[in-house]
Amino acid sequence: MSKKAVYVFGPARTDGAANMKNSLGGKGANLAEMCRLGIPVPPGLTISAEICAIYARHGANVVRKLIEEEVLAGIAFIENEFGKKFGNAADPLLVSVRSGSRVSMPGMMDTILNLGLNEEAIPGLAAAFGNERFAWDSYRRFIQMYGDVVMGLKPASKEDPDPFEEIIDRIKTEKGVRLDTQLDLGDLRRMASEFKALIAGRLDRAFPDDPWEQLWGAIMGVFESWNNERAKLYRKMHHIPDAWGTAVSVQSMVFGNLGGKSGSGVAVTRDTVSGEDIFNGEFLLDAQGEDVVAGIRTPQQITLEGSRRWARLAQVSEEDRRAQRPSMEELMPEIHRQLLETETILENHYRDMQNIEFTIQEGRLWILQTHSAKRTGAAMVRVAMEMLEQGMIDEKTAMLRVTPDRLDELLHPVFDHAALANARVITRGLPASPGASTGQIVFFPDEAEQWARSEFDVILVRRETSPEDLRGIAAARGILTAHGGMTSHAAVMARGMGKCCISGAGTIHIDPKARTMSVGDRVYKEGDWISLDGSSGLVYEGKISTRNADLSPDFDKLMGIAERYKKLAVRANADTPEDARMARNFGAVGIGLCRTEHMFFEGDRIKAMREMILAKDETGRHRALARLLPMQRDDFEGIFTAMDGLPVTICLLDPPLHEFLPQDDVSQREMAIEMSLSYEDIKRRVDELHEANPMMGHRGCRLGITYPEITEMQARAIFEAAINVKACGIVPKVEIMVPMVGTVREFDSQARVIRGVAELVFARHGSTVDYMVGAMIETPRSALVADNIGRQAEFFSFGTNDLTQMTFGFSRDDVGKFLLPYLKAGMYTQDPFQSIDQESVGQLIRMGVEKGRSVRPDIRLGVCGEHGGDPASIEFFHRVGIDYVSCSPFRVPIARLAAAQAAVADTVVE
Amino acid sequence: MSKKAVYVFGPARTDGAANMKNSLGGKGANLAEMCRLGIPVPPGLTISAEICAIYARHGANVVRKLIEEEVLAGIAFIENEFGKKFGNAADPLLVSVRSGSRVSMPGMMDTILNLGLNEEAIPGLAAAFGNERFAWDSYRRFIQMYGDVVMGLKPASKEDPDPFEEIIDRIKTEKGVRLDTQLDLGDLRRMASEFKALIAGRLDRAFPDDPWEQLWGAIMGVFESWNNERAKLYRKMHHIPDAWGTAVSVQSMVFGNLGGKSGSGVAVTRDTVSGEDIFNGEFLLDAQGEDVVAGIRTPQQITLEGSRRWARLAQVSEEDRRAQRPSMEELMPEIHRQLLETETILENHYRDMQNIEFTIQEGRLWILQTHSAKRTGAAMVRVAMEMLEQGMIDEKTAMLRVTPDRLDELLHPVFDHAALANARVITRGLPASPGASTGQIVFFPDEAEQWARSEFDVILVRRETSPEDLRGIAAARGILTAHGGMTSHAAVMARGMGKCCISGAGTIHIDPKARTMSVGDRVYKEGDWISLDGSSGLVYEGKISTRNADLSPDFDKLMGIAERYKKLAVRANADTPEDARMARNFGAVGIGLCRTEHMFFEGDRIKAMREMILAKDETGRHRALARLLPMQRDDFEGIFTAMDGLPVTICLLDPPLHEFLPQDDVSQREMAIEMSLSYEDIKRRVDELHEANPMMGHRGCRLGITYPEITEMQARAIFEAAINVKACGIVPKVEIMVPMVGTVREFDSQARVIRGVAELVFARHGSTVDYMVGAMIETPRSALVADNIGRQAEFFSFGTNDLTQMTFGFSRDDVGKFLLPYLKAGMYTQDPFQSIDQESVGQLIRMGVEKGRSVRPDIRLGVCGEHGGDPASIEFFHRVGIDYVSCSPFRVPIARLAAAQAAVADTVVE
Repeated sequence: MSKKAVYVFGPARTDGAANMKNSLGGKGANLAEMCRLGIPVPPGLTISAEICAIYARHGANVVRKLIEEEVLAGIAFIENEFGKKFGNAADPLLVSVRSGSRVSMPGMMDTILNLGLNEEAIPGLAAAFGNERFAWDSYRRFIQMYGDVVMGLKPASKEDPDPFEEIIDRIKTEKGVRLDTQLDLGDLRRMASEFKALIAGRLDRAFPDDPWEQLWGAIMGVFESWNNERAKLYRKMHHIPDAWGTAVSVQSMVFGNLGGKSGSGVAVTRDTVSGEDIFNGEFLLDAQGEDVVAGIRTPQQITLEGSRRWARLAQVSEEDRRAQRPSMEELMPEIHRQLLETETILENHYRDMQNIEFTIQEGRLWILQTHSAKRTGAAMVRVAMEMLEQGMIDEKTAMLRVTPDRLDELLHPVFDHAALANARVITRGLPASPGASTGQIVFFPDEAEQWARSEFDVILVRRETSPEDLRGIAAARGILTAHGGMTSHAAVMARGMGKCCISGAGTIHIDPKARTMSVGDRVYKEGDWISLDGSSGLVYEGKISTRNADLSPDFDKLMGIAERYKKLAVRANADTPEDARMARNFGAVGIGLCRTEHMFFEGDRIKAMREMILAKDETGRHRALARLLPMQRDDFEGIFTAMDGLPVTICLLDPPLHEFLPQDDVSQREMAIEMSLSYEDIKRRVDELHEANPMMGHRGCRLGITYPEITEMQARAIFEAAINVKACGIVPKVEIMVPMVGTVREFDSQARVIRGVAELVFARHGSTVDYMVGAMIETPRSALVADNIGRQAEFFSFGTNDLTQMTFGFSRDDVGKFLLPYLKAGMYTQDPFQSIDQESVGQLIRMGVEKGRSVRPDIRLGVCGEHGGDPASIEFFHRVGIDYVSCSPFRVPIARLAAAQAAVADTVVE
Repeated sequence: MSKKAVYVFGPARTDGAANMKNSLGGKGANLAEMCRLGIPVPPGLTISAEICAIYARHGANVVRKLIEEEVLAGIAFIENEFGKKFGNAADPLLVSVRSGSRVSMPGMMDTILNLGLNEEAIPGLAAAFGNERFAWDSYRRFIQMYGDVVMGLKPASKEDPDPFEEIIDRIKTEKGVRLDTQLDLGDLRRMASEFKALIAGRLDRAFPDDPWEQLWGAIMGVFESWNNERAKLYRKMHHIPDAWGTAVSVQSMVFGNLGGKSGSGVAVTRDTVSGEDIFNGEFLLDAQGEDVVAGIRTPQQITLEGSRRWARLAQVSEEDRRAQRPSMEELMPEIHRQLLETETILENHYRDMQNIEFTIQEGRLWILQTHSAKRTGAAMVRVAMEMLEQGMIDEKTAMLRVTPDRLDELLHPVFDHAALANARVITRGLPASPGASTGQIVFFPDEAEQWARSEFDVILVRRETSPEDLRGIAAARGILTAHGGMTSHAAVMARGMGKCCISGAGTIHIDPKARTMSVGDRVYKEGDWISLDGSSGLVYEGKISTRNADLSPDFDKLMGIAERYKKLAVRANADTPEDARMARNFGAVGIGLCRTEHMFFEGDRIKAMREMILAKDETGRHRALARLLPMQRDDFEGIFTAMDGLPVTICLLDPPLHEFLPQDDVSQREMAIEMSLSYEDIKRRVDELHEANPMMGHRGCRLGITYPEITEMQARAIFEAAINVKACGIVPKVEIMVPMVGTVREFDSQARVIRGVAELVFARHGSTVDYMVGAMIETPRSALVADNIGRQAEFFSFGTNDLTQMTFGFSRDDVGKFLLPYLKAGMYTQDPFQSIDQESVGQLIRMGVEKGRSVRPDIRLGVCGEHGGDPASIEFFHRVGIDYVSCSPFRVPIARLAAAQAAVADTVVE
């Protein structure tokens, strides 16, 4: 072994550094780095992750032979630094053993504390700290941890109780006590000996008394755990190479539970909620780190300022505060000063907000860990922009610091944090459209409209939604559905409107007749208040106040930076002038998908639409279409005007026709009367139009091919609208998209109709506008033959929702039935409707791009599926050479930032 | 021009030959070949198809300059041979002008007859044949043909009448006559002059009087027609290169309509229905070829034997026959002898059954055309095997002579030919499953069963079918559905059973309550007789008798030859021991797809299945599955026994669970009583299981993953059955297939369950069987990531039905709504559910094959979709390296022959 296997860290010498994560793991590297910065870290050693691969191939004996000398030297180093000897019964050095890979990874071996202890050494430990109970408690905890984690004494099955806890429970029951702390020294002694007997009995080998044997067991246990099933599955799901391996850190123990001059806590260098640049944090006296995390005792604030703010919120008087919950700044001013110094060093050094774990052992501060602090979306933006301002980081770094998805939190209303604390969760569904909303339950779309008109706040609750529910959805504060996935109809519409929606909440049962919704035994009636958190999918009982998140100047600054870096353009999906304007405000440079079908549900239009569908022949269809024409033209005029000078991609009618017809008996009878037709005629036509699988039915350009007059009407409305607005000085940029193209012949036939109409309209008005005709690539077939289609189509827009459906072979309306269990079982590593499945759908898109460009090098390539707003997908789209993405208006800022990050990642080598 | 442009043919000299089809077109080459054989063909010339490309690039003037000299020389040759001069008014040589490409191709220019005639020459023509009316009639026909075809005088729109026919009608009305033959000389004269006036008026140019101008116009017209829209579309659809071009044949006219010593007819060298080696044919006295085709007069037989047979069938006495409809053999023994000589020469020369067109002009026989005769499937087999026997052709040629699809005619019942003649067609649907059947209409599956039990012949008529209809389908003689495509549920089941089925007959309206089916105004009640031709899709009124087609020794011989050549193995799709036995009889070497879902509909099983689905928890499901286990095991024992020694691929449960539940109110209430559950419970569960797009829903391995106990039960039934039959000396070869695989993780999870069960069963029984676990590749995703899946799966079977659905993005249940108009409009060149779409689905299969083999070189690759029985698809599968196809038992012989042909085509260079 020529290469070093063991790296020590301590005040006297530190072999590692922050840039050695690959060998030392994240934790080991940071511990070494802190030592180099002169920060008080309990000394220790880290065994390199490279040894892990040797273990996997050759086993424990070879590894031990290989590294024994270095480990012994390392332990000697710790002993020297710490002034205690490992295995010295009189005053034992205790250590912790931890695993650590270069990326944080669950599933690996848990931490072992207090290693090095045995019965012989207990008096020594007790003497060293003057506390015999502490010594025995440390010992029994060590046996339990080691027995479970290293020796593998597990419950026989998931349903069985933990055998150690069984012993504890039995002793408590016999003593008639409830808490661990009520057990006396004898109980703890007995517990330790029963633990050891349990291990010997079940595993047929004795618990090791020899500290060295304990140590080697723990080291090999860490290496072994790298290849347990859970860790392997996690690595597979996250594409982490098996070869990386895990390091092992062995560190001297310090104790925060040695009385009033000891304690443990967590500090952060800035405010994690607002991002404001104020040091803050919490600590507990006479406690270990795990006690802070467990949340049984309420911790105290580190700073005086923080403590006073807490008192204000908790309505505690200054006297009481000072008496009962003083800050560390008041209690331990010296420790506080040291912490302040440390946080400044660490933040300046790492150039990011730090989360710092510390322990105070009998008046001495020890830093146990530091890492980048988790923060809210708002804090993310503020910290990045302020650090840029403070000259700590450069522009690109600042931009990369913000996770694009987290901007959502800034764009949608959120629940009032305090109000949420006491709220009761009813159930959980899919977080289909973010934001928070609160309102009264209504079960029918038309009634939702009525209630909303009377100024009620309404939550529309439906089994599932259909396009007919559009106006009810628009009127509601939020939508909750029992069926449907993240891209169900309700979800897509809600996201487009920036409206909160939870879909696929499968445990709720809706009884429309009784006007109730029930979850288990609980029944909620029409008019009852509920609250939805569309970002988490949680449904709450009752009314919870919400607040709008304002867009800060920091946000604008961030967007300005993104704008300068991104290469991928960002457009929006918008069907109305209002949406178009909102999208433009959010920075969209065009409309990438304007669906025309929603337009047919408004007001009287549905009637004309139904007449068109029910017409017996072409003449009848023409008559009804003539009535729809002026309405469509108005729509397009509004949208062209809103997008003056920016491109608008209009998708021709796409959904199967029966979506426009009433499906139930009563509505069909009403319609018969309204249209002076017999009920039987209407029923027959609806039956005729019924489809077994409408998603794969008579839709998209298949409609335009069988009924060219529909395409003609739509093309005419588009071109006339463009010419009309042009006359008013507006610049319309028209792109007409043919949906569900499968073969080049389909596209051709529709393009010919569109171009013919254009010539007619231009001739009649003596005016022309530029326009393009392109294909929506949303069936696998169209991607596979994109070279043929590209010869005729001036642009492609990848409809990734349908492309995902067809590639996987599931419908987004039905996927709710198995998506959650699938994600849990690791069948999919992500929801393929949220983030593009690069391996399959991505492969088809890449083919489409290459084939399209091979025949038409300047072909315009866009993406108009839901994935257009997903950062990971945007990174992929950037990489394969897509020109623009289109997403719902509320995701435009997210997409812009993601596009900029993708562009930077493309040029920067880390 | 160094190369020859014009090729003459005639007794004195013939430049061309049969092997020059590329230059001379099929017709020109055969005319030349016949001349070389000394057969009396009216002399003529052929302009090479290579000139067509020059015409397309450079136009008429260049072409004329290029070929004028050769054409003049060619016409001089004809004049010399025929003894008449072109343009000689005293005795004009008239010619026909025809187009001709190397493959027969509709859409090109029609034939022009009588070219070279003008008013000046009419007296000469009249004198030459002593018939003035004939001369004028020839002239007015020529003007009409030339004006329409060459000069392009067409009706203004589809709805307008033909302007020439309008003139004819007007003259007839004025004369008060009904038939053309009632018009006199003056009328014909007037007609000719009005035709010319019409042309001059509408086209603004005069009808050419000059024969040479006529000739050049016709030649250029042929070249021009190569690029008309219809021809271009046809070429695109049939992948015919534009560069091939068309030849032009100019041939001297002969006339069969010059009295009782003239005539026209068609002869065939063998019987086109039975294939028997007897010369036969029909002719009409005093008639032109077109009169024979038109079918207004009933023709007479050529041979005495044929004539006598006709008389027997028509119940005409020998005296009457001889008097009224004597054979050519009796009437014109010398012509008959010449014909007999000619047919022998031609068949021996071409080594195939010939269809020969001839004209007798005033006692002299002229042969106008010969080509391979169209024939029935039975004739195809018999002719090929007898010619092989007779030493005329070799084995490979004999095998290639039989179109595999036509074997269908030998395998299924057919209508009695005579009975069909008078049958009234009600409507036409998709020819979903071949064969003929006749029976009484029944609208409900259970009633179909009851009627059938009482020995009624039943046709089951349904809007669409569901798996629940299985027993009704099995009981019926045939199935007719209003919805669904060629691979709808009904169609697939019917084909599997070899039962006639017509699907997607969209014009029929079914009223189940009234128990009627109507087409337009006609109403058919329950119990009315109808007849279905599943090979053509025609639905007939009334009862039409059918007969079974027997399998001849020739058929067995053909199959024996195929067996020796084919490389692709042929398995069958079969779900029952009966089907398995039938498949084995037809030569299947295994079962490539045994679907288990059909098994759950039989008898009481559906009850247990429903209990399983309705179970509230795993325990309930286990209980119901335990009841299903022995039944499944029995099924598999039967199938393994039937297939002793041959592989059986069993596909795990695939369809969405709600297919097993009753969907209507009444059945749900019945079920509630039967199962002692509340109606509400059942309704709720059915609602919960409802899917918007079941084809893309919770099905396939997604079921097995969410309910592993189903997979466990099925695996256990399979392995226990295999071990049981093994104990009886049977050799089970087990292949378990996981359906609807999308990701390797899905496959893994199911494979692990299966292999776990295998170990348990083997251990319990102390016996093992070999087995494989493989994946059904039926989603685009699985083909795209076949390398990942192939690492785990021991075989792939491409489920091409679903793969086609997902790739195109349409469901086979709904495709009926637009498939027919789509095929008509050329959107698809073929039904992609019948023949694999090589461009897209084929591309995915090729990827799947390559990726699969790249990680597992010996991976077994099969195809189990409907395409496994389609010859064109089989050719493709052979080419991409598939190991076996699996198809319905009745298509096994077809697939075997197609596989052999593909193998021969692969090695033979023509």
